[in-house]
Amino acid sequence: MGKTFIFGHKNPDTDSICSAIVYANLKETLDFDVEAVRLGALNKETEYVLHYAKQEAPRLIEKVEEDVEQVILVDHNEFQQSVDNIRDVKIAEVIDHHRIANFETADPLLFRAEPVGCTATILNKMFKEKNVEISKTNALLLLSAIVSDTLLFKSPTCTEEDVAAARELANIAEVNVEEYGLDMLKAGTDLSDKTITE
Amino acid sequence: MGKTFIFGHKNPDTDSICSAIVYANLKETLDFDVEAVRLGALNKETEYVLHYAKQEAPRLIEKVEEDVEQVILVDHNEFQQSVDNIRDVKIAEVIDHHRIANFETADPLLFRAEPVGCTATILNKMFKEKNVEISKTNALLLLSAIVSDTLLFKSPTCTEEDVAAARELANIAEVNVEEYGLDMLKAGTDLSDKTITE
Ligand SMILES: [Mn+2]
Ligand SMILES: [Mn+2]
Ligand SMILES: [Mn+2]
Ligand SMILES: [Mn+2]
Repeated sequence: MGKTFIFGHKNPDTDSICSAIVYANLKETLDFDVEAVRLGALNKETEYVLHYAKQEAPRLIEKVEEDVEQVILVDHNEFQQSVDNIRDVKIAEVIDHHRIANFETADPLLFRAEPVGCTATILNKMFKEKNVEISKTNALLLLSAIVSDTLLFKSPTCTEEDVAAARELANIAEVNVEEYGLDMLKAGTDLSDKTITE
Repeated sequence: MGKTFIFGHKNPDTDSICSAIVYANLKETLDFDVEAVRLGALNKETEYVLHYAKQEAPRLIEKVEEDVEQVILVDHNEFQQSVDNIRDVKIAEVIDHHRIANFETADPLLFRAEPVGCTATILNKMFKEKNVEISKTNALLLLSAIVSDTLLFKSPTCTEEDVAAARELANIAEVNVEEYGLDMLKAGTDLSDKTITE
């Protein structure tokens, strides 16, 4: 079987980038030929996370090349949020936590959507289901996605499952959720680009 | 929270009926207020299965009544295969094994589709994930759905997972898969209604 691309939505946020990286790692461990890619520029918050984790960013793509056999969508399902040529490629899987709309396939696939606050919360479960240990770096990436999507557990979309997953992941990543989370969210507010009078 | 209806597609087959019954049982065990219902007449094969299992058929509905809080779809997702007023009700979950199309929700939900031969194969996994034992009757119903959808493992949509699930379920149900399966499929061919010269 040929390569599989894994990516989140356009205008990627921390969940779209980190979930793509971490799910690609899980799939590689399970012996699949996958590559995490991204559909747009990193925001400041995600840059902070990848720098902290010493993790390279996924490669930027404009469209899915013809030699790519299939794709896996994370953190989105609606076609208008996906790669421009999404209708021309085989979608093998979707892992998401959003409403479902503007999505269709010709064939059956693995579609896993759960009403939780973050894709990373679902991925945390999938590592356990597959009996794969989560590395320190992957734990930090998943934790960052949860902090980002739930605004440090303050968003109305945040569930108990997200909080529990974040606590577990913070343990593995050996960071203090509140301290790290605030620093990360602050980095995302992008004050460094503004002048003092702003 | 009010009642939840669980149903399969219009023109129900054995998977649509049996998966609705068995998933309703699982949900009840987990303390949810649910009712399995159906969107059409039983076929001969399903009648044979329910009679063999001494299981009552789900209640026939024309549409989802207004006091029903939400619905769970099994064995389908496309709205044209679902209840006529599907667009007016809240869809809480979908458990399915078909391609996804003509489906959308306003809110996030649990959507679990897997590329296997039968919804019952996914339900068999869900009992294990929830640590709920499968009763002898439920095992027979799930086994019947797999035999029906895979034509006793001969259909091209049949996967190794379906075969393994059927073997497990046959053990619990204490039936011989080949014997029971053939009798069941024969009952579905409906020869009893025909005259000898046919
Ligand atoms: Mn996102
Ligand atoms: Mn997200
Ligand atoms: Mn069916
Ligand atoms: Mn089916």
